[in-house]
Amino acid sequence: MSTPKRVVIVGGGFAGLACAQKLANDKRLEVTLIDRRNHHLFQPLLYQVATASLAAPDIARSLRGILSKARNIRVVLDEAASIDTKKREVRSADAVYPYDYLLLATGARSSFFGKDEWEEHTVGLKTLDDAQAIRRQVLTALERAERCDDGEERRRLMTIVIVGGGPTGVELAGAFSDLVRRALRSDFRSIDPARLRILLVQGGDRILKPYSPDLSEWAKRRLESLGVEVCLHTRVDEIEAGRVHLDSGEWIEAETIIWAAGVRATKLTADLPGEKDNAGRVLVNPDLSVPGHREVFVAGDIAHVADEDGKEVPGLAPAAEQMGHHIAKVIKEDLRLEKTQYAGRKDEFRPAFRYFDKGIMAIIGKNCAVVEAGAFKLRGYPAWLMWLLIHLLFLIGFRNKLVVLLQWAWAYVVDKPGARVITGTGKPEPVR
Amino acid sequence: MSTPKRVVIVGGGFAGLACAQKLANDKRLEVTLIDRRNHHLFQPLLYQVATASLAAPDIARSLRGILSKARNIRVVLDEAASIDTKKREVRSADAVYPYDYLLLATGARSSFFGKDEWEEHTVGLKTLDDAQAIRRQVLTALERAERCDDGEERRRLMTIVIVGGGPTGVELAGAFSDLVRRALRSDFRSIDPARLRILLVQGGDRILKPYSPDLSEWAKRRLESLGVEVCLHTRVDEIEAGRVHLDSGEWIEAETIIWAAGVRATKLTADLPGEKDNAGRVLVNPDLSVPGHREVFVAGDIAHVADEDGKEVPGLAPAAEQMGHHIAKVIKEDLRLEKTQYAGRKDEFRPAFRYFDKGIMAIIGKNCAVVEAGAFKLRGYPAWLMWLLIHLLFLIGFRNKLVVLLQWAWAYVVDKPGARVITGTGKPEPVR
Repeated sequence: MSTPKRVVIVGGGFAGLACAQKLANDKRLEVTLIDRRNHHLFQPLLYQVATASLAAPDIARSLRGILSKARNIRVVLDEAASIDTKKREVRSADAVYPYDYLLLATGARSSFFGKDEWEEHTVGLKTLDDAQAIRRQVLTALERAERCDDGEERRRLMTIVIVGGGPTGVELAGAFSDLVRRALRSDFRSIDPARLRILLVQGGDRILKPYSPDLSEWAKRRLESLGVEVCLHTRVDEIEAGRVHLDSGEWIEAETIIWAAGVRATKLTADLPGEKDNAGRVLVNPDLSVPGHREVFVAGDIAHVADEDGKEVPGLAPAAEQMGHHIAKVIKEDLRLEKTQYAGRKDEFRPAFRYFDKGIMAIIGKNCAVVEAGAFKLRGYPAWLMWLLIHLLFLIGFRNKLVVLLQWAWAYVVDKPGARVITGTGKPEPVR
Repeated sequence: MSTPKRVVIVGGGFAGLACAQKLANDKRLEVTLIDRRNHHLFQPLLYQVATASLAAPDIARSLRGILSKARNIRVVLDEAASIDTKKREVRSADAVYPYDYLLLATGARSSFFGKDEWEEHTVGLKTLDDAQAIRRQVLTALERAERCDDGEERRRLMTIVIVGGGPTGVELAGAFSDLVRRALRSDFRSIDPARLRILLVQGGDRILKPYSPDLSEWAKRRLESLGVEVCLHTRVDEIEAGRVHLDSGEWIEAETIIWAAGVRATKLTADLPGEKDNAGRVLVNPDLSVPGHREVFVAGDIAHVADEDGKEVPGLAPAAEQMGHHIAKVIKEDLRLEKTQYAGRKDEFRPAFRYFDKGIMAIIGKNCAVVEAGAFKLRGYPAWLMWLLIHLLFLIGFRNKLVVLLQWAWAYVVDKPGARVITGTGKPEPVR
């Protein structure tokens, strides 16, 4: 047998993991999966960790654990620092990973539209640590408000500004409203947590832009009925520690400022040749390879892919997963053709990626969601049931599924999510 | 009605919480519970968070949540800095809490036998953050070992020294052995996690000193069958970063050094008058008040209490809980007597604390425990079943109970604990 081809996958998100799983135990391949974290994250539920409904391990699973039976896959906890497409190598601070095939799937990071200094005054929602930081900050702010005698400072502590009216911003706003209006209802003595001010700031003319305008409008009214202030046509033009300036001219004093607005591709894409879009995403070939480098693939949030009808493939978990599967298929087909008379012409036979749109859904507080798939639209309680079912089916790992279901069921009955635990701080911060 | 008496409780552990719960909704009292963390911790299961079996929120519950229906209790996230028993005030960095009755129940901290510099090279197991730090360190060390080519360094990364052969040390050692021998069995490619070296260092002539010698001996053999090296009659006489010197003359190179040896009372006890024992614990009156200050009580791990037959009450959760209940009873009886002809003589009627010993139990790896209660002894699988039942019954909060049961059941069947998630580090540490 010939020496196995080396596949290097950078990133254990939906795209990277899906590809790895399809390549598992293929003896023609030696796969190395590099991630700087030890776990695959079920990102669609990250906002529930941030809002104290779920514990961090409920929505994450060790990459090694998932791939333990794939004897041809090595998982490495490392951070890829650069890619040399000429030498066909990925490099980290202290290691070199040579490849025959490379899949870059490192995902998106927050984009501050050129105002990188805003990063230190805001919290994002990309990782488990981010989610725990948001939870810690909001719960600690309420604790400080409870102890605070100064009315103005108390109002500042009890204000959350969420920048960005996409699904993340909407789900966070709804979940925070639930948290303070239901779960924490009778927990405090000096403050009324229900008076937590939640502002959702959106530059465009509606929230949940990927949905139809009527669902956007419905979601906005629903959020408002939950006490969320939805500010459309409003942009943030300055962020300082503890306050936000809106282009309407107003300063909002807010202890917690959550950045859920723009995203851009992670830095590593800069090492790839070829064109990038405004968000730094790589314009890939229809087979998801990089122009001029048929052995290099890009998938997930860092790939700019146009669908057959020219529509852009969205940055969603199912899309990333489908790309990962597609790339595994391409690699396997390559290997097969190499043994045939078409070996020299194998690039010609590469199939184009086709996105199968399963639809989109977002949660808006307890018992309520919006769902849209093609012409199919659903909202309110039935949409929420559908969301629940689908998320339980797709949550990775049976254990997590059962545990999460049970937690949700219990929290649903008693209105008390269970993860209201502040960790990561040795001491309480003094009241300012 | 007369003005309510102010009760200040410092510490939301088993003693403080038990007392607060007994005082709930007593209109004669205004209770303030001060804790520097927002949660009550079920400490007996903390080692399961450290060894990746449970998530942090599974064994913790928000103090506010537990006491939300107690309208006369205010929970404050603050750190008590000093006590003025003359002015009857507890002070923090920015607040003063006057009291009519005080309960100090701040628990134990690690004692390094005068070698405080050892603290920075070791991890303890007192808080959720400690447990997550241990988990992170051990999992990260395995990740680094997987990537390490230097045999000696790899052995150092794959060595854990646990100082202290009490229940904490024994339970950690057994659980780590399970983790690497079962859960992580097929996760790695370059290393065999089962070769993780676990040393349990114990100064005395047996582990689990509170148990009978035959159970200690049995537990030791059981740990050894799990691959743990139990070093009796061995003391640590030096600890540096990444290595430990034993008084047998040997240096042990170990990435992870866990301190589970001595404990001493938290610092605040220094502000109380009267005698302390070697561990800084307050020698209290039989009613658990402080000599000369009948309005000041001490309970839990910082109280030195002799039982009726002169035996010291152990530092266990049930003992702390019983103390908390007792103090609540004393306070309520005080208030009752004040309305009677005995008002001036109420100190004479204070009942003495009586410890009801329910027995002790410790887990030694999967399916195995030791239990001892008076003349009753049990070991092995039946002891483990008993442990399981009792811990499920006593775990605070119904939701946690169900979730934990389910996690255990699942982990039991598949041998894969689910919390193998490293959080709290942005980047992997480079291999040394």
